[in-house]
Amino acid sequence: MTYRIAVVGIGKIARDQHLPCIAKNKKFELVAAVSRHGKVDGVANFESIAALKASKLKVDCVALCTPPAVRLAMARECLDAGWHLLIEKPPTPTVGELLAMEAHAKKKKRVLYATWHSRYNASVDEAKKLLKGKHVDFLRVTWKEDVDKWHPGQAWIWQPGGFGVFDPGINALSIVTKILPEAIFVEGATIEVPSNAATPIGADIRFKRGDGAEADLSAVFDWRQKTGETWEIEVGTRDGLRLHLKNGGSVLVVNGKTVREAVLHEYEDIYAKFARLLKAKKSDVDPSPLQLVSDCFMLGKPVVVAGV
Amino acid sequence: MTYRIAVVGIGKIARDQHLPCIAKNKKFELVAAVSRHGKVDGVANFESIAALKASKLKVDCVALCTPPAVRLAMARECLDAGWHLLIEKPPTPTVGELLAMEAHAKKKKRVLYATWHSRYNASVDEAKKLLKGKHVDFLRVTWKEDVDKWHPGQAWIWQPGGFGVFDPGINALSIVTKILPEAIFVEGATIEVPSNAATPIGADIRFKRGDGAEADLSAVFDWRQKTGETWEIEVGTRDGLRLHLKNGGSVLVVNGKTVREAVLHEYEDIYAKFARLLKAKKSDVDPSPLQLVSDCFMLGKPVVVAGV
Repeated sequence: MTYRIAVVGIGKIARDQHLPCIAKNKKFELVAAVSRHGKVDGVANFESIAALKASKLKVDCVALCTPPAVRLAMARECLDAGWHLLIEKPPTPTVGELLAMEAHAKKKKRVLYATWHSRYNASVDEAKKLLKGKHVDFLRVTWKEDVDKWHPGQAWIWQPGGFGVFDPGINALSIVTKILPEAIFVEGATIEVPSNAATPIGADIRFKRGDGAEADLSAVFDWRQKTGETWEIEVGTRDGLRLHLKNGGSVLVVNGKTVREAVLHEYEDIYAKFARLLKAKKSDVDPSPLQLVSDCFMLGKPVVVAGV
Repeated sequence: MTYRIAVVGIGKIARDQHLPCIAKNKKFELVAAVSRHGKVDGVANFESIAALKASKLKVDCVALCTPPAVRLAMARECLDAGWHLLIEKPPTPTVGELLAMEAHAKKKKRVLYATWHSRYNASVDEAKKLLKGKHVDFLRVTWKEDVDKWHPGQAWIWQPGGFGVFDPGINALSIVTKILPEAIFVEGATIEVPSNAATPIGADIRFKRGDGAEADLSAVFDWRQKTGETWEIEVGTRDGLRLHLKNGGSVLVVNGKTVREAVLHEYEDIYAKFARLLKAKKSDVDPSPLQLVSDCFMLGKPVVVAGV
């Protein structure tokens, strides 16, 4: 079966990833694009979900690629129209909205797939396997990049619900929550917010284990690194295992030895999985990375820094 | 049946509410107190949960009244010892910890009762009944008091996980989440944090409806009101109903007319309910007020204000 898909929100991530991956995947046929500004050649274009619905065009599912702050109402419109739904990460501005979206999809008996692209990687799967059943007592996440390179001219990232540096940072946390054998919890944080923004440009986080056992668990996120990217996760266990995920999780070093250098095809994997979920009529929604981010804000001491 | 109860954390709230209400309720017998500093006359006193456990004293359940930041590990200790658990509000510093605590109680087949004292009120029940099935398009929460009067000398309120002004504010939100017929979501907020604190002294919040319909929904929390307390919730519906809960939710005014002035016996009701939950072997955990607070931090723009 081929699924007739519409992409809603024709911005950077839709053009960079979703449209090319849909074009490559034989299980999907792009039938429409919905955007107030962007247009996609060769398919029907609409300015709103309401207009797409009114057109009576046959649609099976929608990839929702708008910024998170406007997604809940749009997701409800799509689900009410009977369409299954794939959403970009981060799924929603708040966990409350994600749980409401999940409940609405369930009520409407539609598939909801909340994607976390950084989880799709052979090195990440391998790390998860190696950590199974272990007692983790060390974690250091270092996630640094240049906001101007990765989000050129995107004002929404600085608005409430735009996540700031937690937009890349949540990628790291989506890996951490996938590979760790037990949940971790935020203990405290420092959150650096530019004077003219609502969201952070830097964060320094301390985590703790749920059983109260001693552990050295931390993360640092920074959007002010001008040269190259540092996307690394180090994990240590009580029995001496030391994993090091580098290059955004694609390279896995175990006890100093590189054991895997995976090729990245995150969005290809996402669409392959979406097709499987649609066939099985199963949703996939894991709020845990968003929950950790939310908990960082909850326990973070805000510090106002220079404007952007 | 009489339940043998221990109180853990002998601070202000334990002495003001828990100990007197346990003394009044024939279903409970206080058998122990656990605290590093506080002592309770006439019962066994211990400095730690481990010491209580080691004493082999027979305990059925525990009321955990320590500050929220240290509760998860303590709750696990209690549940692992086979004791049922009642916890003060706010339950935990983060939603992540509450969900973990709930999962642990379930695994250990113990009752977990996360209390929200402000929900126990005849006027609040009446408001919930009147709003059932209505379309709410107006909400104004005003929750103002003097931090020095209500939390004299309590340093933990300014530490990560101490909640700041959200400690009283979450009482208002526990009422709001009980009475509203549909969930609301945070749209944005301003969070005022003293320069020498990790938690807020003031907050100004805008909410939204989940269906995207126009609505005027807001809350203001302030810990700097020196004279008296303002604890009020106004709710308006599309068909013209106007409710006004005053005095912390005890007085209900409907369309300008006072219809109920309830007597407060919140903690008495909490212990009566705990006995029912223990008998039925049922837990009661609603994260929604904590979720809304968490979402306020997530979407809030922090503003640094004068130190405390």
